Amino acid sequence: MIIVLRPEATKKDIGHIIEKVKKLGLKVMVSQGVERTIIGIIGEEDIVRVQPLEAYPGVEKVMSILKPYKLAAREFKGRASVIDADGIKIGGKKIVVMAGPCSVEDQDGLMSIGKAVKKSGALVLRGGAFKPRSSPYAFQGLGEEGLKYLMEVKKKTGLKIVTEVMDTREVELVERYADILQVGARNMQNFNLLKEVGLCKKPVLLKRGISATVKEFLMSAEYILSNGNFNCILCERGIRTFEDATRFTLDLNAVPLIKKLSHLPVIVDPSHGTGKWDLVSAMSRAAIAAGADGLIVEVHCSPEDAFSDGAQSLLPKKFDVMMKELGPVAKAVGREL
Amino acid sequence: MIIVLRPEATKKDIGHIIEKVKKLGLKVMVSQGVERTIIGIIGEEDIVRVQPLEAYPGVEKVMSILKPYKLAAREFKGRASVIDADGIKIGGKKIVVMAGPCSVEDQDGLMSIGKAVKKSGALVLRGGAFKPRSSPYAFQGLGEEGLKYLMEVKKKTGLKIVTEVMDTREVELVERYADILQVGARNMQNFNLLKEVGLCKKPVLLKRGISATVKEFLMSAEYILSNGNFNCILCERGIRTFEDATRFTLDLNAVPLIKKLSHLPVIVDPSHGTGKWDLVSAMSRAAIAAGADGLIVEVHCSPEDAFSDGAQSLLPKKFDVMMKELGPVAKAVGREL
Amino acid sequence: MIIVLRPEATKKDIGHIIEKVKKLGLKVMVSQGVERTIIGIIGEEDIVRVQPLEAYPGVEKVMSILKPYKLAAREFKGRASVIDADGIKIGGKKIVVMAGPCSVEDQDGLMSIGKAVKKSGALVLRGGAFKPRSSPYAFQGLGEEGLKYLMEVKKKTGLKIVTEVMDTREVELVERYADILQVGARNMQNFNLLKEVGLCKKPVLLKRGISATVKEFLMSAEYILSNGNFNCILCERGIRTFEDATRFTLDLNAVPLIKKLSHLPVIVDPSHGTGKWDLVSAMSRAAIAAGADGLIVEVHCSPEDAFSDGAQSLLPKKFDVMMKELGPVAKAVGREL
Amino acid sequence: MIIVLRPEATKKDIGHIIEKVKKLGLKVMVSQGVERTIIGIIGEEDIVRVQPLEAYPGVEKVMSILKPYKLAAREFKGRASVIDADGIKIGGKKIVVMAGPCSVEDQDGLMSIGKAVKKSGALVLRGGAFKPRSSPYAFQGLGEEGLKYLMEVKKKTGLKIVTEVMDTREVELVERYADILQVGARNMQNFNLLKEVGLCKKPVLLKRGISATVKEFLMSAEYILSNGNFNCILCERGIRTFEDATRFTLDLNAVPLIKKLSHLPVIVDPSHGTGKWDLVSAMSRAAIAAGADGLIVEVHCSPEDAFSDGAQSLLPKKFDVMMKELGPVAKAVGREL
Repeated sequence: MIIVLRPEATKKDIGHIIEKVKKLGLKVMVSQGVERTIIGIIGEEDIVRVQPLEAYPGVEKVMSILKPYKLAAREFKGRASVIDADGIKIGGKKIVVMAGPCSVEDQDGLMSIGKAVKKSGALVLRGGAFKPRSSPYAFQGLGEEGLKYLMEVKKKTGLKIVTEVMDTREVELVERYADILQVGARNMQNFNLLKEVGLCKKPVLLKRGISATVKEFLMSAEYILSNGNFNCILCERGIRTFEDATRFTLDLNAVPLIKKLSHLPVIVDPSHGTGKWDLVSAMSRAAIAAGADGLIVEVHCSPEDAFSDGAQSLLPKKFDVMMKELGPVAKAVGREL
Repeated sequence: MIIVLRPEATKKDIGHIIEKVKKLGLKVMVSQGVERTIIGIIGEEDIVRVQPLEAYPGVEKVMSILKPYKLAAREFKGRASVIDADGIKIGGKKIVVMAGPCSVEDQDGLMSIGKAVKKSGALVLRGGAFKPRSSPYAFQGLGEEGLKYLMEVKKKTGLKIVTEVMDTREVELVERYADILQVGARNMQNFNLLKEVGLCKKPVLLKRGISATVKEFLMSAEYILSNGNFNCILCERGIRTFEDATRFTLDLNAVPLIKKLSHLPVIVDPSHGTGKWDLVSAMSRAAIAAGADGLIVEVHCSPEDAFSDGAQSLLPKKFDVMMKELGPVAKAVGREL
Repeated sequence: MIIVLRPEATKKDIGHIIEKVKKLGLKVMVSQGVERTIIGIIGEEDIVRVQPLEAYPGVEKVMSILKPYKLAAREFKGRASVIDADGIKIGGKKIVVMAGPCSVEDQDGLMSIGKAVKKSGALVLRGGAFKPRSSPYAFQGLGEEGLKYLMEVKKKTGLKIVTEVMDTREVELVERYADILQVGARNMQNFNLLKEVGLCKKPVLLKRGISATVKEFLMSAEYILSNGNFNCILCERGIRTFEDATRFTLDLNAVPLIKKLSHLPVIVDPSHGTGKWDLVSAMSRAAIAAGADGLIVEVHCSPEDAFSDGAQSLLPKKFDVMMKELGPVAKAVGREL
Repeated sequence: MIIVLRPEATKKDIGHIIEKVKKLGLKVMVSQGVERTIIGIIGEEDIVRVQPLEAYPGVEKVMSILKPYKLAAREFKGRASVIDADGIKIGGKKIVVMAGPCSVEDQDGLMSIGKAVKKSGALVLRGGAFKPRSSPYAFQGLGEEGLKYLMEVKKKTGLKIVTEVMDTREVELVERYADILQVGARNMQNFNLLKEVGLCKKPVLLKRGISATVKEFLMSAEYILSNGNFNCILCERGIRTFEDATRFTLDLNAVPLIKKLSHLPVIVDPSHGTGKWDLVSAMSRAAIAAGADGLIVEVHCSPEDAFSDGAQSLLPKKFDVMMKELGPVAKAVGREL
């Protein structure tokens, strides 16, 4: 059972509810979010069900626990969430395209890519300043310097910024620069990081782990929501299967499936999902046709020289062609680009 | 190295080539197809390369072996194949939808479904008379009786027929009734069955095995082609992964990937691929956006009573809605329904 | 519900039972095996449960249907089955090692290998005369000639023969030569082939499909048993996963799992399971420690020249060392080699 | 190229080498470990190869880069590493068994389990104080209180302690109590955490991610080693596959494989690996037969009441029986328990 409190609920309200529930012999778990507090009740549901909890001061909603995720469930909201990232709406009629290099490498290169993708219609710039790399000897990102480069491009182009945070100790730093904080696939079950971004006010882009079921994916989103941050965008980015002709198997089934199970917006990463630039356009079209709310695409001015993931990056002109092709598909499913 | 002979090549031509190649110390593998003969050469390629084989009488083409599949490779044709199934073209501008029940159950039910899907725009009727079932105690299909029911619907509606063949001993029987012979996912590496349908003149619909890589899939198609039947349609129908929210993981990446690697048409089965009727429409749209040449969809008048696979079958009216939605998507990618 | 009849049950007995069951409004499925007949009842179990079926003439046992496989279930027998292959017992205290080349290539080579593995303690000779190969251009086996070579080695060494059958049309031929008919992983769900070997009297070695769950594996065994052949040996041979450092992932968990679920003996193929000769010894030891009843191992006198699967074949002297190491492990778990 | 410095190398030595390498136009990456410093050189290897680097003061070894992991590679040491955890040797002749509850729940329960497993022959107590749980509403562990309970059992029984650390911010705290710091499967690619435990002096038990290849597993170990902590123990704990009869698929192939590729010790977790208590004994025997250096096993006095993972926990008396059965298997492969 989940008790969602109103934003205006007072400490006294909260204390009152907790006291009442504890008297019933049940355990209480309080998630004090920035905007609102959520009280989880662990124990026999039947005992609570007969209590007039919804009539208590400060209570917005009482939800019975049928699915393991509660706040992320479609039933919690009844309709799709639209998330605001510094003015950009994600989850509405407009399909939001995020584009940019895998990692931030230098100021000039980033600026060129930023200008190009902006011109082609992207609304958000992607680029990693902190990079999770399989090898300790590989380029690990520019850190705060990279964040500053991203900010420069934002100032010049108006593009919003999505960038990854990898460490609980760096959340505050990244939040200072980013419009959307990205939690990467490898950290989808780094629960302490999820809790930390759950305390942020800025939207979080949560990438699906490469071997996470959709249920586990939604459970990880639940960590963010239950800590008070309801601005969570889900991102399908390919799962690991036996197929080796692609780097991962982009699982588009997850798009309509999540749309049925959850109110959260879903975007698709065809670049990591396939690992092959020449499949990116086709899979982007398919993603939109399947109902995705956006795309996150790797674009680089000289993919063969990229510090990471060159094989899956589009040249700006190929990205431009792709964007032109996406328009009619978006229209065909009642959306716009 | 593969030597493809012209349809009009004589036995003398063939004997002459074989003799020449053997003299070079190489092994020869002759595939005598119905329409044409193919000679495979095993051994040091360099020895053959200097021979003027293409100038020999009866030779159409000499191909060097870079990929493990040769006749199925894009390079072999240079363009997409269009396959004719009793007048229906598969692989051209028009997207071909095949629809019908999982298994043929009775004459009346089949006729109702046939009329309904025809009206909604399907061109081919699907339905199994021989059913591969995990359990020996499950309904195994009506056999020849089922084939006759299919033929009846063809007569009434003009729909073409695609139906599965499971046993080398039944190929002749099934070919008498079917317009397209289906080889199911479980038999994708039943090589004797592949050879047998490779000797047929009618098109073959080859379904991808649930754990087959795209390369293995094309190798299985190569079995059919190398036995002389070039009318092979590939069908992506979902692969087995760890995800358990769907029955299989429909792998749409395979569509643009196969289009790059092969000249053969590709269709998609969103019903088996997802195992959930409420994901079929979204994934059908996505399949077409990804470049599929057709769909094969399960439709049943009362899914809950179906002898098999009810959970993934659409009601005729839902199928009709879906077909209407697919039109604009097809148009958006330069195709038509 | 399954009614197992006594071997001596008459046609009249059977007819009588069928008539009775049909009168109750239930469907009947009769499997007429060589040794005994089994009657499957489909429909409401409660209706049958109150009938005194076990008292009917000719009835040996009536089993309620809880698991989807019945005859293969542990409950059906209550104890482990011991299967006789021309005098060799599989499933008893002695661990049976089958060894030999992947494919039968020539008489002399086979004889050398046969003599070597016999000397090291193998009891059964493996070797494919009919070979399922991913490529139509690869060596497809010597056919009946290969079977004759196997028979020659049997005559000289006393080794029993296990060899693969791939086609329903070849079952009779292979049964003439083999002591154990092998159904390969690719054909684990070739249900017509399963039915055909289910009509044989000789034992069948059924290999697990590379993406088959243990439940599906047992369902395939059920096809063989329900056609009357109870002499079915199961073989774990590696499943397909994302791991690419080994050819397959040998799944030893399946050994104790199947032992709990079924009465059938289980052997392990560490050669195909790992695809690497230098892992074969360690995984063979592990297989025996996990409870396997036997091993099937590839041995070749010059692995680098083998027509197939050289990388996973042991040299005879390495096989000999391995056999010596296996003895103490067998003893440690109460078995003998 | 990797330059490993001697423990006694001075700052001046290091500065000198770096200067020299940079002059050659190459990038330098310095990992300042507690015990020794490692210098990675990124760029054209040929330029360095002709330099007499090994003759420089402070240099112990110069290694060319062939595998992506260097310090973890077998070639780096030439023989197996034996790691000391507060007096217990892991990787030597003796097989080390770690046992205890999934999570630390209360002082008395933990003490009972500790005494029981000690009596049966375990040398290390396992138990989570910080618990990674899929659900934010599930028991998250007792935190430092749990660590104190573990310490109490250590004092009473002499058992060493292995316990998980989940957050970079908690490494210092956990290191104060633990003898071995565990990095869980979900954090195998939490690279910041790996770096942090790489700076510790105490041994690290690194669990394989559920979808990590063995290569990726070794790359993650490389993160720990390249930060100066060479005391890394690898733990195979099951991978995610399509099989759903077990919770994961314990991949014993990884044991001999890692033994060939790396010098690091490998232990096996049959409890998480199978998720079923009744498979734990058989898979423990198999693990030892395959060459594992130890086991980590879940034991709980009342599994059905456990806060987590009850289904895979052994009762102390079952654990005792298992330990008795393991002795002969260890002996059969030249080890001891």
